[in-house]
Amino acid sequence: CGAMGDDADTLRILVATDCHLGYLERDTVRGNDSLRSFEEILRLAVDHNVDMLLLGGDLFHDNKPSRKTLYRTMDLLRTYCMGDRPCPIQICSDQSVNFHNRKCVNYEDPNLNIALPVFSIHGNHDDPSGDEQLCALDLLSAAGFVNHFGRTREVDDIEITPVLMQKGNTKVALYGLGSVRDERLHRTFRDKKVTMKAPAESPDQWFNMFVIHQNRVKHGPTNFIPESFLPPMLDLVIWGHEHKCEIEPVHNETGNFFITQPGSSVATALSEGEAVKKHVGLLEIREKSFRLSRLVLKTVRPFAMGEVVLSESGLDTNQHKAIEDLLVSEVNKLIKRAQHEYSERSPDGPAMKPLVRLKVEYSGGFASFNSQRFGQRYLQEVANPKDILLFHRRRAAHKPSEA
Amino acid sequence: CGAMGDDADTLRILVATDCHLGYLERDTVRGNDSLRSFEEILRLAVDHNVDMLLLGGDLFHDNKPSRKTLYRTMDLLRTYCMGDRPCPIQICSDQSVNFHNRKCVNYEDPNLNIALPVFSIHGNHDDPSGDEQLCALDLLSAAGFVNHFGRTREVDDIEITPVLMQKGNTKVALYGLGSVRDERLHRTFRDKKVTMKAPAESPDQWFNMFVIHQNRVKHGPTNFIPESFLPPMLDLVIWGHEHKCEIEPVHNETGNFFITQPGSSVATALSEGEAVKKHVGLLEIREKSFRLSRLVLKTVRPFAMGEVVLSESGLDTNQHKAIEDLLVSEVNKLIKRAQHEYSERSPDGPAMKPLVRLKVEYSGGFASFNSQRFGQRYLQEVANPKDILLFHRRRAAHKPSEA
Ligand SMILES: [Mn+2]
Ligand SMILES: [Mn+2]
Ligand SMILES: [Mn+2]
Ligand SMILES: [Mn+2]
Repeated sequence: CGAMGDDADTLRILVATDCHLGYLERDTVRGNDSLRSFEEILRLAVDHNVDMLLLGGDLFHDNKPSRKTLYRTMDLLRTYCMGDRPCPIQICSDQSVNFHNRKCVNYEDPNLNIALPVFSIHGNHDDPSGDEQLCALDLLSAAGFVNHFGRTREVDDIEITPVLMQKGNTKVALYGLGSVRDERLHRTFRDKKVTMKAPAESPDQWFNMFVIHQNRVKHGPTNFIPESFLPPMLDLVIWGHEHKCEIEPVHNETGNFFITQPGSSVATALSEGEAVKKHVGLLEIREKSFRLSRLVLKTVRPFAMGEVVLSESGLDTNQHKAIEDLLVSEVNKLIKRAQHEYSERSPDGPAMKPLVRLKVEYSGGFASFNSQRFGQRYLQEVANPKDILLFHRRRAAHKPSEA
Repeated sequence: CGAMGDDADTLRILVATDCHLGYLERDTVRGNDSLRSFEEILRLAVDHNVDMLLLGGDLFHDNKPSRKTLYRTMDLLRTYCMGDRPCPIQICSDQSVNFHNRKCVNYEDPNLNIALPVFSIHGNHDDPSGDEQLCALDLLSAAGFVNHFGRTREVDDIEITPVLMQKGNTKVALYGLGSVRDERLHRTFRDKKVTMKAPAESPDQWFNMFVIHQNRVKHGPTNFIPESFLPPMLDLVIWGHEHKCEIEPVHNETGNFFITQPGSSVATALSEGEAVKKHVGLLEIREKSFRLSRLVLKTVRPFAMGEVVLSESGLDTNQHKAIEDLLVSEVNKLIKRAQHEYSERSPDGPAMKPLVRLKVEYSGGFASFNSQRFGQRYLQEVANPKDILLFHRRRAAHKPSEA
């Protein structure tokens, strides 16, 4: 794509997902991580003067966020999303279909001064429940801070009506589908019962963008949504739910569309995927082309992961002290690596204890030991002292693999 | 007081309390009662073109209101409280002291178009909790819909800083104190540790109004706040928590102030106090004088209460059928009375099953019987079929009374 300025035909969107607000909120060290990075995202949106912020679900970690989390979230949204910047996006679709709550996008409400409109689908963590099928996003919608879209009541026959957005010559059809149980949605897709209602008027002029919150990685025969299920009319898919940052758009050859997977803004597991450097995307759309620039999240807690295989360490199974020394030395290396990565990414950031995870493969007669006790020595240095070590045995080498 | 027009020197306030939003929300008949009457209150405020709505606590029934209740409440507030009417009240006090949340009254926020500002203290039902001492009102504050005031962190030494409001020549000092445990507050008052910080400048020009949410009725030696504890500098006290509507201002001779007790807008008990016709108050303050007009709440579910003393019925203890017939006849009379009262109060209102409570005094060898079974015949007629009858025995006549 060519250069795209901050001009009248370029729709500029900050794209993020899986903020998991309220995650571990009672943890004295990590309790504020999710909100801190969400605030960074809001600040990035304001600083980059985008036209909107687009979220891919799991804004909240808990289906019923605590009062404190809800309060702080509303406080942040009120602080960053209100103001005098007029929103240049014109909505051409039927808003009463797009936005089930107030039937109107928030920045067109004459009583609210919205500078940064937020659009979000819901994830599996913050999905609707109860007789009125309300979710935490609906509270933010009622307050006027978020435009919750992509809710479907029907799961076996889904028609997705896009939000039609226009800025100058650029026309974007934004399709959203809040989280649905994967097996169920897999079946509905397979049965060709998911329809995306393309705009009737000059359909080929629209940039078609789909926001989805499902397993992208195969977790079982139908426990994911294959990319091949998605219609080729799409131009760009924003994939939420997967926490690993793979924000660089990947081209899907069959469908001839791109997929970007922003990943979470807070690690909710000590896994490889969450250890990847976290970004959000600055998406610029001009007519039918787009550009996505990644913006690193500086406030994310540093996290380093490593592995040691005891049977390859040259130590004997009864050399307990030496084994422990080895693990201490490996953990120290991880701490250094995490701190180094953090100081490069965020040279002016405040000191932050890193997350550290050392996987210990202990097959071959080695004993595991108490990870919690081991972590005592790292109370001042590591954010997760209790679960630094993860002991595991390698799967039997000759076990036949599943079909 | 003389006539007070809708003029530039008259501060006009709608006064209500104890809306208990979400009360019995899962009850298929009564589930919407609290929200319906709250909506009526908001509509009255708009229709009477008041400058503000003042609430005396227990806006919510549950400390943690359900998502549905929170959603509907925000939706109502957004619908009725926003708009183009400029608020003519000027706040002269330090808002960062008055409003602990956003440090600013909502209608002065340039990003919110507030037509009807709502001011509220919290009650015992919706009191602050957790490490940040947040309550449900704070969520409404964060959203910009309510000005939560009168929160105190200190319970043994309370200084109440009023919100100083000015409209033309009228100056009102609004003192608020959110609910505190009665025994505790009783002691603090008794120890002269409750101070109301009168405005320094021309203190005698201010109309001093105090909003309190405590027991007014004596429930034990210190389990209430005697009116005599309140300082004589006050002009008017708005007393929340007591659900019985005694909205007509009563003069306290000693303190030379008036007390108005609006009462709840929904019956949360089948008691005498809740059976009194419910009102809110249209309070007009002009310089140092005020007038309070009561406005009947038309949407309140009709409620009639009666009593029958079996030993005075002329029936024998073994005339079970005749006793039951008597109770049926009494309940029928109550239903008629409730419906009559409702049709007078709300001639155009929708049909509504009444609340009915018949107290049955059954001393003298009479048997009580299953109230739930008795109510089966009233499923279509009464809103509380399961607990229409309340059997009780008169206290022994010669039992010595407590000191
Ligand atoms: Mn998810
Ligand atoms: Mn997630
Ligand atoms: Mn109450
Ligand atoms: Mn109360």
